[in-house]
Amino acid sequence: MMRRPVAVAVWLFVVVMCLFLDSPSLAVRWTDTTERKTLEYGCGEEQDVDRIVALPGQPPVDFAMYAGYITVDEKAGRAHYYFFVEAEENSEEKPLVFWFNGGPGCSSIAYGFAEELGPFFINSGGESLRLNRDSGNKVANVLFVESPAGTGFSYSNTSSDLLAAGDFRTAKDNYAFVTNWFKRFPQYRGRPFFLAGESYAGLYIPELAKLIYDNNKKLTSQSRINFMGFMVGNPVIDAYSDNWGYIDFLYYHALISDETYSQMKKACKFTHDNAPLSRECIQLMFYQSTNEYGGIDPYSIYAPACVSESSTNSSRNHFHRGLQQTSKNPVLGLVRQGYDPCTYDNSLIYFNRPDVQKAMHANTTGIPYPWVGCSDQLIVNWKDSAATVLPIYRELLNAGLRLWVISGDSDSVVPVTGTRYALASLNLPIVVPWYSWYHHQQVGGREVVYKGNLTLVVVRGAGHEVPLLRSAQWLQVFESFLKGSLLPSNPYN
Amino acid sequence: MMRRPVAVAVWLFVVVMCLFLDSPSLAVRWTDTTERKTLEYGCGEEQDVDRIVALPGQPPVDFAMYAGYITVDEKAGRAHYYFFVEAEENSEEKPLVFWFNGGPGCSSIAYGFAEELGPFFINSGGESLRLNRDSGNKVANVLFVESPAGTGFSYSNTSSDLLAAGDFRTAKDNYAFVTNWFKRFPQYRGRPFFLAGESYAGLYIPELAKLIYDNNKKLTSQSRINFMGFMVGNPVIDAYSDNWGYIDFLYYHALISDETYSQMKKACKFTHDNAPLSRECIQLMFYQSTNEYGGIDPYSIYAPACVSESSTNSSRNHFHRGLQQTSKNPVLGLVRQGYDPCTYDNSLIYFNRPDVQKAMHANTTGIPYPWVGCSDQLIVNWKDSAATVLPIYRELLNAGLRLWVISGDSDSVVPVTGTRYALASLNLPIVVPWYSWYHHQQVGGREVVYKGNLTLVVVRGAGHEVPLLRSAQWLQVFESFLKGSLLPSNPYN
Repeated sequence: MMRRPVAVAVWLFVVVMCLFLDSPSLAVRWTDTTERKTLEYGCGEEQDVDRIVALPGQPPVDFAMYAGYITVDEKAGRAHYYFFVEAEENSEEKPLVFWFNGGPGCSSIAYGFAEELGPFFINSGGESLRLNRDSGNKVANVLFVESPAGTGFSYSNTSSDLLAAGDFRTAKDNYAFVTNWFKRFPQYRGRPFFLAGESYAGLYIPELAKLIYDNNKKLTSQSRINFMGFMVGNPVIDAYSDNWGYIDFLYYHALISDETYSQMKKACKFTHDNAPLSRECIQLMFYQSTNEYGGIDPYSIYAPACVSESSTNSSRNHFHRGLQQTSKNPVLGLVRQGYDPCTYDNSLIYFNRPDVQKAMHANTTGIPYPWVGCSDQLIVNWKDSAATVLPIYRELLNAGLRLWVISGDSDSVVPVTGTRYALASLNLPIVVPWYSWYHHQQVGGREVVYKGNLTLVVVRGAGHEVPLLRSAQWLQVFESFLKGSLLPSNPYN
Repeated sequence: MMRRPVAVAVWLFVVVMCLFLDSPSLAVRWTDTTERKTLEYGCGEEQDVDRIVALPGQPPVDFAMYAGYITVDEKAGRAHYYFFVEAEENSEEKPLVFWFNGGPGCSSIAYGFAEELGPFFINSGGESLRLNRDSGNKVANVLFVESPAGTGFSYSNTSSDLLAAGDFRTAKDNYAFVTNWFKRFPQYRGRPFFLAGESYAGLYIPELAKLIYDNNKKLTSQSRINFMGFMVGNPVIDAYSDNWGYIDFLYYHALISDETYSQMKKACKFTHDNAPLSRECIQLMFYQSTNEYGGIDPYSIYAPACVSESSTNSSRNHFHRGLQQTSKNPVLGLVRQGYDPCTYDNSLIYFNRPDVQKAMHANTTGIPYPWVGCSDQLIVNWKDSAATVLPIYRELLNAGLRLWVISGDSDSVVPVTGTRYALASLNLPIVVPWYSWYHHQQVGGREVVYKGNLTLVVVRGAGHEVPLLRSAQWLQVFESFLKGSLLPSNPYN
C-alpha cells in the first residue's frame, strides 16, 4: 500500500491529522443497527419507497430520483447507500451508469454527486441547491454508490468490518450491490450498463467489472447484466507506473526541486508489487510536500486551494491547513467563475442536516458519527490493494468491452504521466494516433485509441475531479464514451 | 539558429505564413527617412519635446510619460523608439528599469507596454485605454524600448540593416541607446538601473549587461551607469538546455504522443553550439505542432487561444489560424476575468492610428509599412545568435550583480524545464533551497536562490508573458527583485 501516490497521501494525511485534529474520530464506536424498513417490502414497493419527493432547497426538476440502501452482506449487515438519478429526458432510451469515487473510503455523494456530475450543486452555507448545467443525467441514468461499507452513509452492523476492508471484499460487495439493485429495479435489466468513476475507483471498477464479466458467463442471456464497459478518471492503475509518473509529474511541473527529484529517483525503488517504500523515500515525499510544493491543492495544481477557516473536517483540506494560515482567501482567478474551492464545506453542512438525510433516505439506522467525505478509519486500515489491474484491462479488452481512461492533466496525485506509463506498458497497437480534440473552438485535450477498444482522453486544465473545473468538457467526453465515438478533431461552433 | 525553440517557432511561422498570408510583407521596401526634429535640440529641450501630453482615449494619470527616438548609429541612421513611464509616486526615489521584449524583432510596445506591465491596456476595438492596476510603474520608472532597428517603430535609414540584424549589433545599438538616453535624461544618471524583459531578450539583456559592465570599468565613477542587475522572464539562455527542456516539457504536459517524444529524443541531436537541426527532427517538430498539440496558445498552454476572425496580422496567431476555424470563440473560463486572448488585435488597431502615433511621437519619419508586433523581416534574416549566455551569467554574478530569472510554468515555448536545466548547469551552491512563495493566501510559485545573487522564481499558472495572466503575482516578483528581497514563504493577508 505505501508505495502508491494515494497511499502516500494517506500517510501524510495521518501524520498531519495527528498534528492538527483534535477530534478523536479515529476511535469511532460502532453500535449495532437494524436493517432499514424498506428491505421488508417487495421489489416494486421497495422502489416506490426509495423514490425521492424532493431534496430540501432543491429547484424543481422533471426527472425521477431514488435513494436508499441495498444490503450487500446479510449476515454481517453490510449495506451500501445509493442515490439514483434518472436521465433528464427519455430515460428509458438512455444507458445506465454506476458511479464510484475512490479513497479508499471516499464518498460518491460528497464528490461525484455534489461536486462533479450530480444534478445539483450545493449553495454556499448548505442552505439550498442549484442546478448543474452539465450533469451526467443529461445523457445517462446515473447512480452514485457509497462503497465500501463505512464510506459516507454506507454501514456495517459488524463493526470489525471497518477495520478489515480491502479491494477483495469491496469488489464482492459491489457485485452484490449490482445484482441486488437490479432486483429492486428490474425495469433496468438488459439496459446498456457501464461503470464509471475516478481515482482509487480505478481499482474498484476493473475489479467489479471482472466479477460481472466472469459471472455473466454462468448466467442465461436473460439474467445476464448487459455490461458494456467502463470509464475511469485519473485512475490508480499500476503501482510501478503510477509512482514513477507521480514523481516525474512533480518535477516537470516545477513543484519540487532538482535535488529532491534526483534524490527520489535514487531512494524510491518503486517495484511491480506493493512492497513498502524505504524510510528515505517517505522522508523525501514528506519533505517535498511540506517544504517544496507548498499549500496548493495537489488535486488541481493551478486552482486556488481552499483556505477557509471552517474547513476542519475534510481529509483533503487537513493537509493544507497545516501549511497555511487560516483565513478567508482571495480566490485567484485561475478557474471558471463561480467555482468555490471550499465546496466540500457546503456538503459537510448539507448532508449532515437531519431533514436532508430524511429526504435522502440516508442514515436510517442512526450512524453514531457525522457523515464525512472520506473515512479515516477505512483508509488507515485498508487491508488489500491490487498492485496492478492491467491484467484485467487486457482480459476485458480481449472480451470486447469498451474501456476509457480519462485524465485531467493538472492533477498531481494520480497524474497523466503515470497513467500514460501504465497504458504504454500494455504494448497495444495504436488505432487512432494521438490528436487534439476540441470543445467548440478550443482544444479540450488529447485522445489516443489503442487496439481493442481502449481509449485515453486527456482533459486540458482539469484536475483530479475532471468534471469539477471542466464540466462541459467532461460531459462531452462522457457522452462520447457512452456512444463509443471519437471526440472531434476540429473546432466547431 | 534553427536549434532553438524560438527558432523552431520561427521556422513554423514562416512555413505557415507562406500558407496563410496574402500580404507581401516580407518584401517591404525601405525609403530613406530623415532624422527626427528633436535631435537638433539640446538635452533639456529634447526631453521636453519627448514629453507626452496624453494618449488618445487615455484615462487621466498623475505621472509623466515621454516617448521618442534615440539615434543608435548616426551613419546608418538607425534609431530606437522608446516609451518612458515615470513611477506613479515619488519617481525620484524609484529605480530605473529598461524593458525589452524578444522575438527577435518583437516590440516592447506591443507586448511589454500594451499587454504586460505598461500603465494602460487597450480596450476592445482599439478606441480607448484603461488603467493597468498592476503596472510596473507602481514600483519603478519603466522604459520600453523597441530593439533592434526594424522592430515596431524603430527604424534604419540603411535598408540593408534589416537583412543583417543579429545579437552582436543589437547589443552594440542597445548600449548606444542606453548611453544616449542618459544624455537626454541626465537627471537619471546615478539612479539604480536595471534591465528587464523576456523571451529572446534573455539573450539581448545579458549581452547588453556585459557591455555596460565592461564599459563602466573604463569610466569615472561619475559617468558610470549605476547598473545593478537584470530580471529575465522565460528567457532564452542556453541552446542545449532550452531545447531539451522544450521537448521534455511537451511530453510531460501531455501535449505530444509517446511515439513522437521518443522519436524526437533520438532524432533531435541538440548540441552546445548552434548547429542546424536534422531534417527528421524538424519534421517531428512540425508533426507534433500540427497534428498533436493542436490549436492551443503555445505561450500559455491552459489559456484560451485567440480564434477571432480579425487576427490576421499577429505572428503569434498565424500559426494557430491554420489549425482552427475562424469564428468567435466562447472564451474558456481558464483565466482571470477580463482577459482577452485576442488582445494583440487591439494593439494593431490602436498603434496604427495616425493620431495615436502623433501623440506617441512615433513613426515621425513615415515608415512605409504598418506597425506590427513582430517583424517578419528581422526574424527570418537574423544573422548571429548566442548559443549560450551562461558565461555572461557567471561573469556578472562574480561581479556581484543581481540576476533574477523568472519563469511562468505554463509556457511551452521557452519552458521552465529548460530554464532549470540551464541554471543547474552552472553548478552553483544553493543559498536558499527551493520553496513555495505566497501571493496572499495562495501559492504564487516557487523560488530558489543560488550563490552569487542568482534567483530563480517560478510563477504558478503564468505563461510566456508572465504579467499577462498573473499581473499581481508578477508585480510582487518585480518589486522583490528591485528590493533584492525574498518572496514570502508563508501565506499573508
